[in-house]
Amino acid sequence: MDTRSLAISYAYDNNDKFLAFLEEFLKIPSISTSPENTGDMLTCAQFLSEKMRKIGIENISIFPTAKHPIVYGDHLHAGENRPTILVYGHYDVQPVDPIELWNNDPFTPVIKDNYLYARGASDMKGQVVACLAAIESVKKTSQLPVNLKFIFEGEEEIGSPSLNSFLIEHKELLKSTVALNPDTGMISADLPTMVYGLRGLSYFEVRVFGPDHDLHSGVFGGVVHNPAQVLCNLISKMHDENGKVTLPHFYDDVLELTSTERTELARLNLDDEYYKGQTGASQLWGEGGYTAVERIGARPTLEVNGFLSGFTGVGAKTIIPAKAMAKISTRLVPNQEPKKIHQYLVDFFKDNAPDSVRWEIEMLSTGHPSISDLEIPETQAMIQALEQVWGIPPVFKREGGSVPVVADMQQILGIDSVLTGFGLPDDNIHSPNEKLHLPTWKKGIDALINFLMNIGEKA
Amino acid sequence: MDTRSLAISYAYDNNDKFLAFLEEFLKIPSISTSPENTGDMLTCAQFLSEKMRKIGIENISIFPTAKHPIVYGDHLHAGENRPTILVYGHYDVQPVDPIELWNNDPFTPVIKDNYLYARGASDMKGQVVACLAAIESVKKTSQLPVNLKFIFEGEEEIGSPSLNSFLIEHKELLKSTVALNPDTGMISADLPTMVYGLRGLSYFEVRVFGPDHDLHSGVFGGVVHNPAQVLCNLISKMHDENGKVTLPHFYDDVLELTSTERTELARLNLDDEYYKGQTGASQLWGEGGYTAVERIGARPTLEVNGFLSGFTGVGAKTIIPAKAMAKISTRLVPNQEPKKIHQYLVDFFKDNAPDSVRWEIEMLSTGHPSISDLEIPETQAMIQALEQVWGIPPVFKREGGSVPVVADMQQILGIDSVLTGFGLPDDNIHSPNEKLHLPTWKKGIDALINFLMNIGEKA
Repeated sequence: MDTRSLAISYAYDNNDKFLAFLEEFLKIPSISTSPENTGDMLTCAQFLSEKMRKIGIENISIFPTAKHPIVYGDHLHAGENRPTILVYGHYDVQPVDPIELWNNDPFTPVIKDNYLYARGASDMKGQVVACLAAIESVKKTSQLPVNLKFIFEGEEEIGSPSLNSFLIEHKELLKSTVALNPDTGMISADLPTMVYGLRGLSYFEVRVFGPDHDLHSGVFGGVVHNPAQVLCNLISKMHDENGKVTLPHFYDDVLELTSTERTELARLNLDDEYYKGQTGASQLWGEGGYTAVERIGARPTLEVNGFLSGFTGVGAKTIIPAKAMAKISTRLVPNQEPKKIHQYLVDFFKDNAPDSVRWEIEMLSTGHPSISDLEIPETQAMIQALEQVWGIPPVFKREGGSVPVVADMQQILGIDSVLTGFGLPDDNIHSPNEKLHLPTWKKGIDALINFLMNIGEKA
Repeated sequence: MDTRSLAISYAYDNNDKFLAFLEEFLKIPSISTSPENTGDMLTCAQFLSEKMRKIGIENISIFPTAKHPIVYGDHLHAGENRPTILVYGHYDVQPVDPIELWNNDPFTPVIKDNYLYARGASDMKGQVVACLAAIESVKKTSQLPVNLKFIFEGEEEIGSPSLNSFLIEHKELLKSTVALNPDTGMISADLPTMVYGLRGLSYFEVRVFGPDHDLHSGVFGGVVHNPAQVLCNLISKMHDENGKVTLPHFYDDVLELTSTERTELARLNLDDEYYKGQTGASQLWGEGGYTAVERIGARPTLEVNGFLSGFTGVGAKTIIPAKAMAKISTRLVPNQEPKKIHQYLVDFFKDNAPDSVRWEIEMLSTGHPSISDLEIPETQAMIQALEQVWGIPPVFKREGGSVPVVADMQQILGIDSVLTGFGLPDDNIHSPNEKLHLPTWKKGIDALINFLMNIGEKA
């Protein structure tokens, strides 16, 4: 057998071990946004470090940050003339609520019908394990043909507040040829996908304050401005009827799609029926003049992620609430700037909020949008690897999600990212019953082995 | 001493006992809307029955209903030529959330600076105890000059769903000359107040459904209509900028204020500064063309009592929520009909909700508005009693709150209600730190004694 076949054979033989690693990893409730899980975050970082050490990764460090630690490690024995791949991943996960909609405990992984169910299974502990499994498979059967560095953060789901300064501070340590980022997904289980565009993000909490305490709606109904109503009025003014965001200046810096891109995106066959199936929505809705896949990948959006005010329990409580809040986030496309969006939102409130209430806006997280170069040799090695495993060339896609580290690595480290990943659209990431399609995950490990081998051959 | 002075003296001597009765009463968490307090409701009804029995009230019955029991009792020894007063009260209370804003446990009464703090202290366990204290004071020192019947319900704070059918079913048992209803309040501690108008209520929960699960706002942002945004749009269309409710037909049946009433209401001196002080709002807001006191007492309103959708915890969760809900209630004035308002709201949703979402509206409670006749002898007896205690004649007010039983008793039993009560506007009813002003409460007991004596003299 050649070295490639040896590695793939090793991965096949050791799949149960890799799966057990993933299940252990998933049992740690590493919810980065939840203060009560702070201890679990460190536990999770330590667990990951220990797994890396066992594979033979060196110089492992757990770097503390203001919130959750960053795990570093490297393996630099391929020679200076060989490329250095910076493997990026995150070990944190989204919250689990609404918990009552889960069919199993989110942190007790369950395998059923080819799927592994657990919070983080797809986003992205499964992807991290796939990378480490591929590296182990090559390392144990031949020699790693590339140098490797690893950076696993614990704050991706809260907008990576510490990562930017970490990249700046450790620019020399992280110096690499290219990054490998398996945090994007595939269009379907039989269609390998290369992502070249990612949306950015700016996430806000807005709060509106009315009377200084909840009021009896009979005794005082008619004399004060209800902050819940005010917030509804403001939110309703942020879109027109055709789905266009009406926040002034919102679209000012948007890079329009080229006609080549529109043609390529149209070939993905992600039509309205597809998205209706994925979302369960009876009808689609969005900005006029763009197809669904264009709206997701290449157009910015503004969403209410949640809102809360007053009495929301069972039954009737007749109050005028003292305050109302909403979580509002925008997904941004090149060349929108998250901080400018913050200013637009503040200006919008200044211009539209009535004097009868007080308000405040807190920016909770930001991330830059990005577009990646598909022509670099390592990206070409991944395109080739996907075709080797799936038998067809990958499609090229702009992704609606945000992986701000891609833009940060471009700006700070001067490196592009090879973007892929083996999650599927119906994995319910960020939702109850998150799952990982195990056959696709196994193919992903094979593809990552081929990726490493292809770079070795090219270099 | 005359019998009147004897009774007042008894009330003075026994005030500690009455206060202890009230404190015991307040310790029972009789939150009618909360399923987990169902047992406490029965405990509270039994406690009240036992206290009534000790005073000498007869024929005490605890009538079960679909939800919480109704307590009945009577004392019919004044003679057939004497009027029969039907004393109405409720032993249920509002929920206590937001619990973190309370300075003491809501069901552990605390006395501080002339105030008794506890949920229900003012609304209306304090008023119920005042009635029973006045009756005991007269009964123990002379003979009750009127016949008495009692009806204490446990569902007032959830819209009295069982009361209407109870009144119909027990029309004969409840037959009386007039009702005494001490569930309204005073304008200030030195201004005795007679209420002659009450607003009605219709309370709804509206729910909007979008995708069939919470979606990742990156992966799907741009293709589905966000139910939280849809609900905001709908709520924003329910008022115009001048505070007028824009639900079609909402004002169709509103009885306009007479010029006499407007003159009388203007004399109350409840100006904008007063309401700013009471609410802590920096500016007032409401329907154009009416003063604050007119808007509260004689104009209908529509309020968002609460709303909830998606993620509202600490931090950032990037989802498009699957659903959104709001509690929406209207305060109604004569001659608006709660069920018509339900239809208007349903029609509004039919006309305005987009096809991209599904919605439903549940009517949670209703109550009719009412206007009472001030000329009946028992009301005149109360007007006189208030002047006897406070030294000045009472003011006449239309109240913003809802006491639907007043309209129900008019319609079903054919009797008017004497409406008064000794709560104050800053008692924080329905809010954290509900309190009762004890000096006013004691005066209230005296006024109720005088009320009974005055009827005795007139009859």
